[in-house]
Amino acid sequence: MTDIEEIISKLIEFRNERDWEQFHNSKDLALAINVEAGELLELFLWKNADEANKEKVKEELADVFAFAFLMADKYGFDVKQIIIDKISQNDEKYPTVKAKGTAKKYNEL
Amino acid sequence: MTDIEEIISKLIEFRNERDWEQFHNSKDLALAINVEAGELLELFLWKNADEANKEKVKEELADVFAFAFLMADKYGFDVKQIIIDKISQNDEKYPTVKAKGTAKKYNEL
Amino acid sequence: MTDIEEIISKLIEFRNERDWEQFHNSKDLALAINVEAGELLELFLWKNADEANKEKVKEELADVFAFAFLMADKYGFDVKQIIIDKISQNDEKYPTVKAKGTAKKYNEL
Amino acid sequence: MTDIEEIISKLIEFRNERDWEQFHNSKDLALAINVEAGELLELFLWKNADEANKEKVKEELADVFAFAFLMADKYGFDVKQIIIDKISQNDEKYPTVKAKGTAKKYNEL
Repeated sequence: MTDIEEIISKLIEFRNERDWEQFHNSKDLALAINVEAGELLELFLWKNADEANKEKVKEELADVFAFAFLMADKYGFDVKQIIIDKISQNDEKYPTVKAKGTAKKYNEL
Repeated sequence: MTDIEEIISKLIEFRNERDWEQFHNSKDLALAINVEAGELLELFLWKNADEANKEKVKEELADVFAFAFLMADKYGFDVKQIIIDKISQNDEKYPTVKAKGTAKKYNEL
Repeated sequence: MTDIEEIISKLIEFRNERDWEQFHNSKDLALAINVEAGELLELFLWKNADEANKEKVKEELADVFAFAFLMADKYGFDVKQIIIDKISQNDEKYPTVKAKGTAKKYNEL
Repeated sequence: MTDIEEIISKLIEFRNERDWEQFHNSKDLALAINVEAGELLELFLWKNADEANKEKVKEELADVFAFAFLMADKYGFDVKQIIIDKISQNDEKYPTVKAKGTAKKYNEL
């Protein structure tokens, strides 16, 4: 079992013990990712990057990951593969020769 | 190399080729996770769960993962470990005997 | 007619001409607010506060307002009143003597 | 004084009594809008539209409005005008003849 398979398996075990799959349709999982992303963002609000509480960042980031993995599982996506595919796409959108050292979006390069 | 180490290594390679580490402070990574989570959410807007475009969900979810992995790397978090730790915490907040079959928050159980 | 009544009336006219009320349940309006808030946030991503494009900020902020006003209308809320009520609540949570000059949350004061 | 001017004036009074203008740069206001939008969204998580707690929706929506008005003030935007301008733009992007009764985005019409 890869580490990602192990993570997903533990998340599903936790979910199924509580009979929560009934709530976890893909739309509400997208909501959950946003809610957790917002809680993560709050840790940086009115602050410099280095002032966020690291322990809380760890917890909120774990929540973002948890719902992201559950959504990947819901759709049957291979997490490593979809990231590799996205990197390939971005390789074309952001060629190094144009994108190097600039934070511009691809449509402004 | 585990799956997760391989993902992070590819993301960092992509980032470093473009000299983007300078922009990737933890606060802006939290913003990026929210921006991508919002784009994922948009795919479900005004729709039922099963009407979202699967191909686009794949791409936007990959973006959420990408910035989440980069943030984990920035803090030196072990992704598998922080999720396992969060599951343990949630095991206490949501005991199966109380949480089974209900979507209530822990403070309403 | 007050300013706010005029805004809401124009938004509803635009919506009804397109027969969009059927999509505007309160849950999807909450999604829409998040989607637009994410687009607003993107304008600041990897940037200093003063580097965001003012014209685009204007447009994305208008979108946030539009769906917030439509949600207020959906629930029959008086926008001025709910803000005044919230300020009163916050007056208690953030007494000036404790909250002055600090960005801490009320539960950390 | 219009009702919007009155709202903004009360928000600024609350802010200035606490000496919080120093934290309210436009980037952090964009974060705040997202954080509050996420809290609003959470009220609908795992629920049907009509199951959200109306009293809490009122509070979280008021928070979204509060930071949106503060951002409008920060940029010197006239809230009524920017919404009217956005409606005009959308009138062109979503002509009634094409957009009537469909939730498609303008680039899919």
